[in-house]
Amino acid sequence: MTHIPDDHPRYVSLKIREKIVEGVQMAITSMQGLVAQGRGEAFDYLIGERTIESAAVAERVAVAYLLIAQKPVISVNGNTAALVPRALVSLADIIGAQLEVNLFHRSDARVHRIIEHLKAHGAGNVLGLKGDARLDLSHDRAIVDQEGIYAADVVLVPLEDGDRCKKLVDMGKIVISVDLNPLSRTSLSATVTIVDNVTRALDNMVQFTKEMKKDSKEQLRSIIDSYDNRKILADAMYAIQENLKNQTEREGIEWI
Amino acid sequence: MTHIPDDHPRYVSLKIREKIVEGVQMAITSMQGLVAQGRGEAFDYLIGERTIESAAVAERVAVAYLLIAQKPVISVNGNTAALVPRALVSLADIIGAQLEVNLFHRSDARVHRIIEHLKAHGAGNVLGLKGDARLDLSHDRAIVDQEGIYAADVVLVPLEDGDRCKKLVDMGKIVISVDLNPLSRTSLSATVTIVDNVTRALDNMVQFTKEMKKDSKEQLRSIIDSYDNRKILADAMYAIQENLKNQTEREGIEWI
Repeated sequence: MTHIPDDHPRYVSLKIREKIVEGVQMAITSMQGLVAQGRGEAFDYLIGERTIESAAVAERVAVAYLLIAQKPVISVNGNTAALVPRALVSLADIIGAQLEVNLFHRSDARVHRIIEHLKAHGAGNVLGLKGDARLDLSHDRAIVDQEGIYAADVVLVPLEDGDRCKKLVDMGKIVISVDLNPLSRTSLSATVTIVDNVTRALDNMVQFTKEMKKDSKEQLRSIIDSYDNRKILADAMYAIQENLKNQTEREGIEWI
Repeated sequence: MTHIPDDHPRYVSLKIREKIVEGVQMAITSMQGLVAQGRGEAFDYLIGERTIESAAVAERVAVAYLLIAQKPVISVNGNTAALVPRALVSLADIIGAQLEVNLFHRSDARVHRIIEHLKAHGAGNVLGLKGDARLDLSHDRAIVDQEGIYAADVVLVPLEDGDRCKKLVDMGKIVISVDLNPLSRTSLSATVTIVDNVTRALDNMVQFTKEMKKDSKEQLRSIIDSYDNRKILADAMYAIQENLKNQTEREGIEWI
């Protein structure tokens, strides 16, 4: 593995990248996942590589939805399995949610490896191998478990494909996305859009769940009722705009 | 290879991604190149996945520089070799430029494979294996051919590292970069910064060269003399801002 000095200005981002490369070497992350990671790096750079205020709000609302859910499911792909296996397991544990592996570049062998990887990080039962139900989509992310995502009322989909996110919403589910692009089809169609790096988002959500677990259903409901996802998206775009303006001026380029 | 349905809204971008993955499978593109591709995808999305007006201006100026050059060289890395082998060969042919392979993650075997890949796409002589000169840099992109990049007066560096771009400029060369981030160190230090996807930029430049080949030296000089690279960078940032604003409003999100 490449040595990254801990005083490097982009230390955190580079360490995250190393985790994804390890994921490819373990054959749990696809090569396309590496490209997706690069895409995420660019958008994370645009929001300043920090949890913006509106994202923290969305993360709390997401936790409220997960805590009042009848059948919450956390969807896991090759990138999230490589990046945040422990946080996924912790969140599923304290929420009482199911983990389900779901891949765009699907093979049974890779689903199996990801399940083993999650179990090595403390997961109990992990769904995704059965694939006994289908969403109405033309690619392999259509394949889901009947008792898992298909039957879920609340689904957390970190790093999701836009059409699958929309399909899950169309099926009447509450869908929580984690996506650094506020204008992606996923971000636009989700019930709750978290514009944050998945590594920060999952850590925050574990923390918030610990705090909010004692709240009453009424308290959780009132957090949800006061939430406006369109406003969260507008705030994220404003954060990007401000950040670009500041960077441009810092380089002595005119901001027209 | 994964099947990408041709009704997928991001079909073109995903097909380009597949080419880079094939590059890795052929061992001409590095894994780090995949992450770089992803960062490029994000910035391409920001400019609307099209050639913006200021980029077309920069591409014409780049062609003018290449046509009046005494010793033009086109630098090729693992990503450009995978993405645009045929366009690189065509451009070198009609300009009368040398192709030179130059890699950050260098091995003689990989240089050799890229040379063979370019030859399979019609290239004649390709430089880069000799490596008999050095730029004053601490990494392997320092290694160049004496008769190629080292002696060149005009160098086209698609997808370049910031410090090498700056070094070539400091050596008195005209440096033309292709980089989708207008604020990258490469974009900020190049003589002519083309903020465009390398697949579109190269195709455009081949077309422009065919049109401009008949122009007199005076005509080419006057195209160059009227050019202001800082204005091009400001225009690119404006295009990003406008594109984000339009997309935001199109989606019914408030632009704050």
